[in-house]
Amino acid sequence: MEKGQYTLGIDFGTNSVRALIVDADTGEEVGTFVHDYTRGRDGIVEKPGDPNFARQHPLEYIEGLEAAVRGAIEAASDHGDVAENIIGIGIDTTGSTPMPVDESGQPLSFSERFSDNPNALAWLWKDHTSFAEAAQFTEQAKREPTDYTTYCGGIYSSEWFFSKVLHLSRVDPEVFSAAASFVEHCDVMPALLVGDTNPRNVIRSRCAAGHKAMFNAKWGGLPAQEFFSRVDRNLDGIISKLYRDSYTADTKVGGLCREWAEKLGLKEGIAVAAGTFDAHAGAVGAGIRAGTLVKIMGTSSCDMMIVPAEALNVAIRGICGQVDGSIVPGYIGVEAGQSAVGDIYAWYRDNVRWPLENILPETSFGRNLTPEKVSALMRESKDTVYDVLSEKGEKLRPGQSGLLALDWHNGNRTILVDPNLSGLIVGLNLQTRPEEIFRALIEATAFGSRVIMDRISEYGVSINDIITCGGLAEKNPYLMQIYADVTGRPIKVSRSAQTCALGTAMFGAVASRHYAKVEEAQEKMGGLKDIVYQPNPEKKPIYDRLFALYKRLHDAFGTRDFAENHFSVMKELLEIKRQTTQG
Amino acid sequence: MEKGQYTLGIDFGTNSVRALIVDADTGEEVGTFVHDYTRGRDGIVEKPGDPNFARQHPLEYIEGLEAAVRGAIEAASDHGDVAENIIGIGIDTTGSTPMPVDESGQPLSFSERFSDNPNALAWLWKDHTSFAEAAQFTEQAKREPTDYTTYCGGIYSSEWFFSKVLHLSRVDPEVFSAAASFVEHCDVMPALLVGDTNPRNVIRSRCAAGHKAMFNAKWGGLPAQEFFSRVDRNLDGIISKLYRDSYTADTKVGGLCREWAEKLGLKEGIAVAAGTFDAHAGAVGAGIRAGTLVKIMGTSSCDMMIVPAEALNVAIRGICGQVDGSIVPGYIGVEAGQSAVGDIYAWYRDNVRWPLENILPETSFGRNLTPEKVSALMRESKDTVYDVLSEKGEKLRPGQSGLLALDWHNGNRTILVDPNLSGLIVGLNLQTRPEEIFRALIEATAFGSRVIMDRISEYGVSINDIITCGGLAEKNPYLMQIYADVTGRPIKVSRSAQTCALGTAMFGAVASRHYAKVEEAQEKMGGLKDIVYQPNPEKKPIYDRLFALYKRLHDAFGTRDFAENHFSVMKELLEIKRQTTQG
Repeated sequence: MEKGQYTLGIDFGTNSVRALIVDADTGEEVGTFVHDYTRGRDGIVEKPGDPNFARQHPLEYIEGLEAAVRGAIEAASDHGDVAENIIGIGIDTTGSTPMPVDESGQPLSFSERFSDNPNALAWLWKDHTSFAEAAQFTEQAKREPTDYTTYCGGIYSSEWFFSKVLHLSRVDPEVFSAAASFVEHCDVMPALLVGDTNPRNVIRSRCAAGHKAMFNAKWGGLPAQEFFSRVDRNLDGIISKLYRDSYTADTKVGGLCREWAEKLGLKEGIAVAAGTFDAHAGAVGAGIRAGTLVKIMGTSSCDMMIVPAEALNVAIRGICGQVDGSIVPGYIGVEAGQSAVGDIYAWYRDNVRWPLENILPETSFGRNLTPEKVSALMRESKDTVYDVLSEKGEKLRPGQSGLLALDWHNGNRTILVDPNLSGLIVGLNLQTRPEEIFRALIEATAFGSRVIMDRISEYGVSINDIITCGGLAEKNPYLMQIYADVTGRPIKVSRSAQTCALGTAMFGAVASRHYAKVEEAQEKMGGLKDIVYQPNPEKKPIYDRLFALYKRLHDAFGTRDFAENHFSVMKELLEIKRQTTQG
Repeated sequence: MEKGQYTLGIDFGTNSVRALIVDADTGEEVGTFVHDYTRGRDGIVEKPGDPNFARQHPLEYIEGLEAAVRGAIEAASDHGDVAENIIGIGIDTTGSTPMPVDESGQPLSFSERFSDNPNALAWLWKDHTSFAEAAQFTEQAKREPTDYTTYCGGIYSSEWFFSKVLHLSRVDPEVFSAAASFVEHCDVMPALLVGDTNPRNVIRSRCAAGHKAMFNAKWGGLPAQEFFSRVDRNLDGIISKLYRDSYTADTKVGGLCREWAEKLGLKEGIAVAAGTFDAHAGAVGAGIRAGTLVKIMGTSSCDMMIVPAEALNVAIRGICGQVDGSIVPGYIGVEAGQSAVGDIYAWYRDNVRWPLENILPETSFGRNLTPEKVSALMRESKDTVYDVLSEKGEKLRPGQSGLLALDWHNGNRTILVDPNLSGLIVGLNLQTRPEEIFRALIEATAFGSRVIMDRISEYGVSINDIITCGGLAEKNPYLMQIYADVTGRPIKVSRSAQTCALGTAMFGAVASRHYAKVEEAQEKMGGLKDIVYQPNPEKKPIYDRLFALYKRLHDAFGTRDFAENHFSVMKELLEIKRQTTQG
């Protein structure tokens, strides 16, 4: 029997790192291991009293890399000597998660001088301390002859690279000036593995550069130095510390160096691919292709497409970015998303569970409950609440509750790009029950998803079907069917439960030249589950009417231009309720 | 010691009748008794499958009258021979609750022919089977040279007298044609007590006639016969079966007849006052006077004022009615109200309790609960939920939740007069907790109340303070303080817990000439509790901003004319939240 060949995907998340060993020919996942970070709260270094603050120690990455890879090899041990047959490594991380480094590429947090300084750590993607700086970049971009934010949605975010660099320069000039460069987490790791972390040599990810650092071929790479200097003189000379080129994730950065080959128990010299971001690797692992939208559903959603470059030569308004090669080389990678999806369901679930902790112990029935029992009940009820709400909600017809909601509990990422929004629900009456509200919230997130699809479609990009992945997609047929019915498109579910690690393993396979192209790796290594959620054509007319009302409220509360009377909104919801209750 | 003199107030509610014996000089309540109705569900004869259907057997009234009065006398026994010293009787009932009667005034339901026919029963105020007929009256009124609905809000209701009469004529011509007249419950009772129920002689209540039957001196009493005939030829000749005059509740209908004196154990010949509706009697009992709005708060609210006739010669748009003498003789009685107040709180409470019944028994912790235990827990938790939500909610500053709600879960009675509306809540985020939503709902009902007061004030009627009564007012300081802060007016609470029966006892005292005027009876027999909820001036600016947003949504969703952009709404709620959280 021919010996198998494997690739290794390493997926650095917010709280843990996963290593996955995949058969390079069949996609079979032969071993995986998750290492949880150990510092701060679940790996996040926080600052009391500042909810915007989120840092991470780069040591987590180094320790985690070794633990996860060794764990995955161990887990694959019944497949024979897998480690010896690993031919390539791919890496994805969260982002934008930059860290200041010295001239050798060593994170400043490793130096004694800054060992206790949280500003020298990696600035985790969800660190929002730089919101003022983000606004400044957006403002200045609008004043420039070239709006450098054009291809990242027109609004620069506090989560992104330059906001964080500028904020660092202001709050900690010492760290800032000690930094020879600033490197994304996803670029640090491949450099480390090939044994050359010199920031001048580090291969920078196209995905990170394009989506988070305004890198675009239209203006020859990063924005002009003058732009940064006009934002703040602190940034004078910043470009010279950074990079001129960026690379797609199929690029071979180099061969695995001896030191790390030994640490990981892998063969020296095997291909290490350029880094990318988790969601984009996930899209590849899920099976993204032209005409298929990949939707990664978790606490929030990330909606991605790839479009042949010649088919998209204008900027789609309001999306999170469109970057050549950011997902699959040779295509424009389009990224959009919703600020809260699973988070909204969990919020409602937690309000439904709330009485078990806050009312029950106040009654004669629950007065003797120990705090431990209450905690156990709260834990157990997480799933029970979802189960009961789903079971009851499934019996409702679309429109029957008379409810309509806006899914802006955490703002709107696409297409409004506005954090200063909030959730809304209308159509409440004295008979409204929790399962109706829960269903309305699910429908709202599906309507939000439809708005994104409509926006992308307006630019001539057709969306034939949807592939979902993530925990919500796997566990909730109720949810998936509503999404299919609301969007009117078949919804498929990726076969793998760890599409990010799988996608990045595919990049490892291409970097090692096992495949010539990402598409080939997808073809051989990817796949879908058997189930397809087909839209029910009978439900379409009602959902179309509800969506029109959703869009009306969306435009009324979310844009500056829509000024109409809404007398008909409650009337039509009641009319729909009446018709669907009888129907 | 001088022997006391007493009056008897009899208050017929939806599910029971209360008799109250009151010291005519001091207002001391010396004996009371409540008799629950016995037929149907809590006294209401329902029709399976038709939630609009609500009838009541007139025998309830006769049986209940005797039981309640005898019970009250018994309860007053330690005050000496009270029964002998009762000098007058007043009666209030629900309404519009008309019943078909024969030529002697006997309810048709007492005849053998119709004994099993629910159409021959009293049509309870909340019977909504006549909604189509109501719409026809409204429509026709707009086509007439005189709009007969002018002084009852401009929209005729399915709950009102003529809607019910017309509906009866259509669904049961046999009962309709057997009816010599149609008499309101509040007019039947005094007639019965004085021993002359002949419909031609029955003293008809000004309150019932003016608020529910379009009776107004401006057009010489009831609307013209032609109006009714144009609505439906079924109503040809209807006016000849009805009445030309109507009377205020201080009118002495006659002396108590021997038969009923014996039945009740009272002296023959004592004064019996004309009937009125419960809410209006309650306003009198609570201490209504010019400049004071009386707010009866229960499942819904009834907001009442009295205005000197010369001070109000135009119709206030959107209120439930303005009728000369309907509350206190010599004043225009103004009635407005909110379709749901306590009902909204109870709805939310029930959704908060819902998991105790629907989630808890599905967990390992609650799996062994018997249905009886669950029921007991649900009963007990009613109060617990209110207590916990109030305790937590009291700690919130106005605006701190960032929430704003519309209180239209059961439509809007005043000033929009529109049942086809629904509840709305905006400002939700992933941290929103139940006590915040509950507080937003309370604030919404208070904003709704402020809209009513603003509307009345626009017509030059000033409102200096508010007297509340009803269960909510007595039990909820949290609620009362929010109302004071939102409306910017001191809120007082009536001393009596049974203002309807007390008010009607005052009418008994005036009918007996113990007092010359209702105001004198109020002065001697009424009173307030010591507590006054003073508006907190520090909270006013925030509530003013929130109210402006409430009014914006109110007009946007509730009227046809308001067409503006709402981009600022969520922004301002977030801004208020930010300021009040820091502040």
